[in-house]
Amino acid sequence: MTAVKVGLLGLGTVGAGTINLLERNNDEIARRAGRGIEVVAAAARNLDRPRGCSTKGIRLTTDPFEVVNDPETEIIIELMGGYEPARELVIQALRNGKHVVTANKALIALHGNEIFGHARDNGVTVAFEAAVAGGIPIIKSIREGLAGNRIEWLAGIINGTANFILSEMYYEGRQFGDVLAEAQRLGYAEADPTFDVEGVDAAHKLTILASIAFGIPLQFDKVHVEGITHISREDVAYAEELGYRIKHLGICRQTDEGVELRVHPTLLPSRQLLSSVDGVMNAVMVMADAVGPTLYYGAGAGADATASAVVADLVDVVREFELDPVNRVPYLAFQSTALSDKPVLPVSNIVTAYYLRMEVADQPGVLADITRILGEAGISIEAILQKEPAPGAEHVPVILLTHPVRERQMDEAQERMEALEAVQGRITRIRQEQLQ
Amino acid sequence: MTAVKVGLLGLGTVGAGTINLLERNNDEIARRAGRGIEVVAAAARNLDRPRGCSTKGIRLTTDPFEVVNDPETEIIIELMGGYEPARELVIQALRNGKHVVTANKALIALHGNEIFGHARDNGVTVAFEAAVAGGIPIIKSIREGLAGNRIEWLAGIINGTANFILSEMYYEGRQFGDVLAEAQRLGYAEADPTFDVEGVDAAHKLTILASIAFGIPLQFDKVHVEGITHISREDVAYAEELGYRIKHLGICRQTDEGVELRVHPTLLPSRQLLSSVDGVMNAVMVMADAVGPTLYYGAGAGADATASAVVADLVDVVREFELDPVNRVPYLAFQSTALSDKPVLPVSNIVTAYYLRMEVADQPGVLADITRILGEAGISIEAILQKEPAPGAEHVPVILLTHPVRERQMDEAQERMEALEAVQGRITRIRQEQLQ
Repeated sequence: MTAVKVGLLGLGTVGAGTINLLERNNDEIARRAGRGIEVVAAAARNLDRPRGCSTKGIRLTTDPFEVVNDPETEIIIELMGGYEPARELVIQALRNGKHVVTANKALIALHGNEIFGHARDNGVTVAFEAAVAGGIPIIKSIREGLAGNRIEWLAGIINGTANFILSEMYYEGRQFGDVLAEAQRLGYAEADPTFDVEGVDAAHKLTILASIAFGIPLQFDKVHVEGITHISREDVAYAEELGYRIKHLGICRQTDEGVELRVHPTLLPSRQLLSSVDGVMNAVMVMADAVGPTLYYGAGAGADATASAVVADLVDVVREFELDPVNRVPYLAFQSTALSDKPVLPVSNIVTAYYLRMEVADQPGVLADITRILGEAGISIEAILQKEPAPGAEHVPVILLTHPVRERQMDEAQERMEALEAVQGRITRIRQEQLQ
Repeated sequence: MTAVKVGLLGLGTVGAGTINLLERNNDEIARRAGRGIEVVAAAARNLDRPRGCSTKGIRLTTDPFEVVNDPETEIIIELMGGYEPARELVIQALRNGKHVVTANKALIALHGNEIFGHARDNGVTVAFEAAVAGGIPIIKSIREGLAGNRIEWLAGIINGTANFILSEMYYEGRQFGDVLAEAQRLGYAEADPTFDVEGVDAAHKLTILASIAFGIPLQFDKVHVEGITHISREDVAYAEELGYRIKHLGICRQTDEGVELRVHPTLLPSRQLLSSVDGVMNAVMVMADAVGPTLYYGAGAGADATASAVVADLVDVVREFELDPVNRVPYLAFQSTALSDKPVLPVSNIVTAYYLRMEVADQPGVLADITRILGEAGISIEAILQKEPAPGAEHVPVILLTHPVRERQMDEAQERMEALEAVQGRITRIRQEQLQ
């Protein structure tokens, strides 16, 4: 089947990231979607600027309306940001019968009700997973994954810049202004950081989340918004002393009286999972009546993470083109004719680090024997813990952490160590993973 | 539109939970799915047993084939568990042209390839979100939300019983056998705990996750499986001393050589988010090339959490009945004609606890004035922190945590406190939430 043809508005970092991702994972995406996806036209403000992606085979223009009116494009990706001309372009695309994928939270939060009306009138769809919490599939999870629940409240760290600043204030004891200046140097914060540190960006995202959670229209103007500019490192330290972290949260809650929509700094108990979400990472905790609390964590911004959500939306739209609805999403994610025959490795081939615990005779030379055997098997040691013998015991526990090694080598070394007279019984062996 | 008619196989706790959830959230579910969902027939082994749900209006039978062959049912929910007769019943339902929703991980892990073949042949779907990690929408997130990514590895705490036992060993310093016996008393562990503590249940789930992540066929027989029965409280304590937690993980990884499929106890750095997942909770961390690490956390078992996933699958299937594919999933989760007009509350109505920081004159009676004002406003105090004055400073910081109070009351109290001569400048006020 021919590839689905896509037009792109905005060739900044996320636009380039999307083109790169579609190219790099081209085969994997087609195996999932059933068809390839190809960017055929793109609009950028300045065509001469160097870009972080190849634009080979893409018709480039400075006029975004050309892309939106291009009869060849079936789906339009809007990555320009801001209200206008994004709003006008998206509506024009919908009127032209094209589906729209957008990462524009401001646009959806303020003009979503209008835009969805145009989409319905024209029998096309608008997808906006990338608008909230970057690459975390939070919209899909709430909209589909929790569809059986009455959602009671949700609370999210949904602005990476604010979370980075508060994390630095906590871990480094620095003042707000200091960290902000550094974040701007590092490119985590905009030259004008108002939207991030005053909570406007988080309020855009909360508006969308609340609508999806509670089935209410988008009402950005009713969100209570506070930023983090008045938080001092002293507040962060006092909160810690009391057992709390300060996080900038978007919170919405359904009560009998109505709906709460609020964005503000918040003291959270330190043991709360959300309190451990640091740096530029995002996370949303959702409380629902049947499933209880669920949490979704990941990168909330950045070219690749945002592109991940944009491409997921593209695949969703392309999967809707499938004529047979029950085969829309393949059971195992990939088309049944496109499964891989990659072999499953025998466990002896697997490389991991190890924790080893053994009981050894409390006599000189034992540790030397053990480390020699490990050394000969090419296994290096990361840490050794030798414990005192229990009163009257002849054996002492020795605990070793190794660096990663192929399991086969460890099997051989373990056999040799267990053959030592000074080693009693079997060695307890547990794998160790850094997960990085 | 008439409600979709559903047949249910198995009326145990999850079956009862599903009936209760469909009834309790009947309106909310119909607003999302576009149609109501109604259980019209159910099979149970023993019809005389008391159940945790109403069976009014449901045709009950002891013969599950009656439900599967009932011409009225459009979707069959299989909650019997085990391999047979579940396999035969599911295949019969598919042959009868009925869609199937199942929570049966063993069935999908071992017979999924065969079952999906029958589904394809008959133009119907098989949904199994409830088979992995209970109410966490992990299958949907990987299959759809991460569809643009090449998934590198995933690691999950996907057996609540094993995680509960390891958590107790860590926090209470108890031995494996002790905790297992208690878990059995509490109903967290089966009378025959083999599947949980030997890793078989986790291996079923890992088999499914790996297929969806990598696009490989289901290959349960190739999973390397180790349980937690050989882990002692001493191992847990030594691991902690070295900066690690021991967790029972399902791990799969793609390498150039092939695919790793393994379930085993694992030392994880304590700072890892997965290390903070305690008790019966589940969580899966997925590493993907574009989005980076994402994590999904929630209840992995229990009647309500499993029912949440079953109903989400039902809504997915019902949404596929929608003739207009682009309106399959409503933009804002609920049908546009079914949005709620619940009012957004003014912030003065909102009830939260507060952190207050103020600079006060270092003289007697000030704290008495402050606590009197708070008391008169009906605000009770949870904690007070009074710091030493800086050398030569005339003012000292006082920090208060209050119990929850309506914002309006706090506004008034704050105004009165700031009017005290001994209080310098404005009071810093930050909301506090327990998120429970």
